[in-house]
Amino acid sequence: MTVQNIRFQTATDELIVLDQTLLPHEERYVTIETLEQAEQAIETLQVRGAPAIAYFGAFVLAKEAGRLVDDPDFTRRLDLVGRRLIATRPTAVNLQNVIESLLDLNIGDDFEAIAEEIKHRAIALYDRDVDTYRAIGEHALTVLPAGGNVLTICNAGAIATSRYGTALAPFYVGKERGISFNVFACETRPLLQGARLTVWELDRADIDVTLITDNMAAWTIQSKRVDAIIVGADRITRTGHVANKIGTLQLAVLAKHYGIPFYVAAPHSTFDLTADDTIEIEERNAKEVTHIGGQPTAPVGITVFNPAFDVTPPDLITGLITEAGVFEPTETAITHHVGGTIHV
Amino acid sequence: MTVQNIRFQTATDELIVLDQTLLPHEERYVTIETLEQAEQAIETLQVRGAPAIAYFGAFVLAKEAGRLVDDPDFTRRLDLVGRRLIATRPTAVNLQNVIESLLDLNIGDDFEAIAEEIKHRAIALYDRDVDTYRAIGEHALTVLPAGGNVLTICNAGAIATSRYGTALAPFYVGKERGISFNVFACETRPLLQGARLTVWELDRADIDVTLITDNMAAWTIQSKRVDAIIVGADRITRTGHVANKIGTLQLAVLAKHYGIPFYVAAPHSTFDLTADDTIEIEERNAKEVTHIGGQPTAPVGITVFNPAFDVTPPDLITGLITEAGVFEPTETAITHHVGGTIHV
Repeated sequence: MTVQNIRFQTATDELIVLDQTLLPHEERYVTIETLEQAEQAIETLQVRGAPAIAYFGAFVLAKEAGRLVDDPDFTRRLDLVGRRLIATRPTAVNLQNVIESLLDLNIGDDFEAIAEEIKHRAIALYDRDVDTYRAIGEHALTVLPAGGNVLTICNAGAIATSRYGTALAPFYVGKERGISFNVFACETRPLLQGARLTVWELDRADIDVTLITDNMAAWTIQSKRVDAIIVGADRITRTGHVANKIGTLQLAVLAKHYGIPFYVAAPHSTFDLTADDTIEIEERNAKEVTHIGGQPTAPVGITVFNPAFDVTPPDLITGLITEAGVFEPTETAITHHVGGTIHV
Repeated sequence: MTVQNIRFQTATDELIVLDQTLLPHEERYVTIETLEQAEQAIETLQVRGAPAIAYFGAFVLAKEAGRLVDDPDFTRRLDLVGRRLIATRPTAVNLQNVIESLLDLNIGDDFEAIAEEIKHRAIALYDRDVDTYRAIGEHALTVLPAGGNVLTICNAGAIATSRYGTALAPFYVGKERGISFNVFACETRPLLQGARLTVWELDRADIDVTLITDNMAAWTIQSKRVDAIIVGADRITRTGHVANKIGTLQLAVLAKHYGIPFYVAAPHSTFDLTADDTIEIEERNAKEVTHIGGQPTAPVGITVFNPAFDVTPPDLITGLITEAGVFEPTETAITHHVGGTIHV
């Protein structure tokens, strides 16, 4: 079974999340009682992954709506809840879109009905997301060799989405069908999402996974006969350029060198059809590189280059895998498959 | 100034080593008083790097010889010292060769003269090594672009040799001549020799160095316009295959993809003319990958692949740089330049 990182009990409005800051050492679930706790959960990365944050926000809004139905100031107060949730992660377009679409329902005096409708929509959003990631997994299974060795990086998994994940979806969907894979997970420095999260969630789901450090990728591909590489994406442009976790680009180069396919798995909401190959790459704090678990591992004050993402050009990508199928990373194919389907 | 990791005072036989286990947090030098301390220094990696260990052993033997000159059992006891030193690192061919060549001098009754000769030879060995690494640096300067951006991995530096290092030699020799470089150092998981040692020793010598994690190499080459890659070697076969720290192979693949030169710098003593491309690769303890600084960073008991080295084929190598010059990694060139020159 995949991990369920967020659970919302519709009868009681109980909201429970997996505290990802404690992984992989402890699998602890915390109950979110208040708006303040919800804000903290996002800010401290107890909940992470853009899709997961979006429906977490939706459940929080639904919960707060239910709590406020007897408040004569319902309309204004619920709007304020929404704004506070959006403010926790201003760059998360998913979260903003979802909250704003739910707040569009906040019209009129029948607060009970509004709260019910928000809850209904939040659940529908979650269910639709599960379908999306399952479809990605199904399509990925049509191109990955059953029983094969597949390499991935970072965590594009169940705990970053509603279920199944993106790059990890074929392993979960395959597991349900009796199709197995040997997954090689790059640890993904500096924040070790591969070691801490991907290895943890696959192992927990009884999927074969082997951890390697990021500099072992080429030797692993060669000596362990890796058949394919599959990764997630943070943003895909209309030109087929893929911004994803740092290290993705060099895996794509290795795939080309070794003549194995390189796939990018992502839902349509990841596509930014207004963007081309000029994507600005965020540089993060040097301490992420010079310290591990709070301990310094490099000289103090040394110069560090710490880009959070890199951009893989379309000529290094064998196929994009979305809920609509597998297609080439060309502007024509992207417009055909994705254009017009992006909605909240 | 390069770091001097081992200092031997010929007048007093005082032997001082840089304790590399404390780097990069503390630059502490310890005095080696006894044979037991010397053995521990090798075993605990206070002294590391095959060339450095070899002349450290030579100095220890010289020191012990001086201490034993009044002992009627000099011959047998000095021989025992040599055997104990060799036993500290059975796989270090350099160390064994050096100690055995010095013990060859242990003939006759004039113990004073034998001790003097051993000391003389040990110092000569060290001085010759310095010349070797300086020559490697000089030759590397003929192919690296002055002022350029150069990427490296692991620590093939001053503190692994007698001075200058191999891959780092051009930066030190360049510094003496006013030729500067911007060095990018891969941190080199799992043991972080790049972050802990290379960055430390270059920064200490006032050479521009930027630390990156191993998965940032491709994006760094592309976005920072890296001009060349230079690495050391653990073993080079007659067929031009290079066994070196894990991660070397994928840098060679990246160099080819980006059309930049890839150089391997090593002394002739690194060549194994009896070996071809079938090099057995040591796999090390999983804990090196799953723990950092003693702290677990991955789930307990997870499957790990932890090869210590990889093998880079000659078609990915632009040039081998030795004390004899820069040449192509072909069997003909290797035999011509290296064959017959390998000696202790």
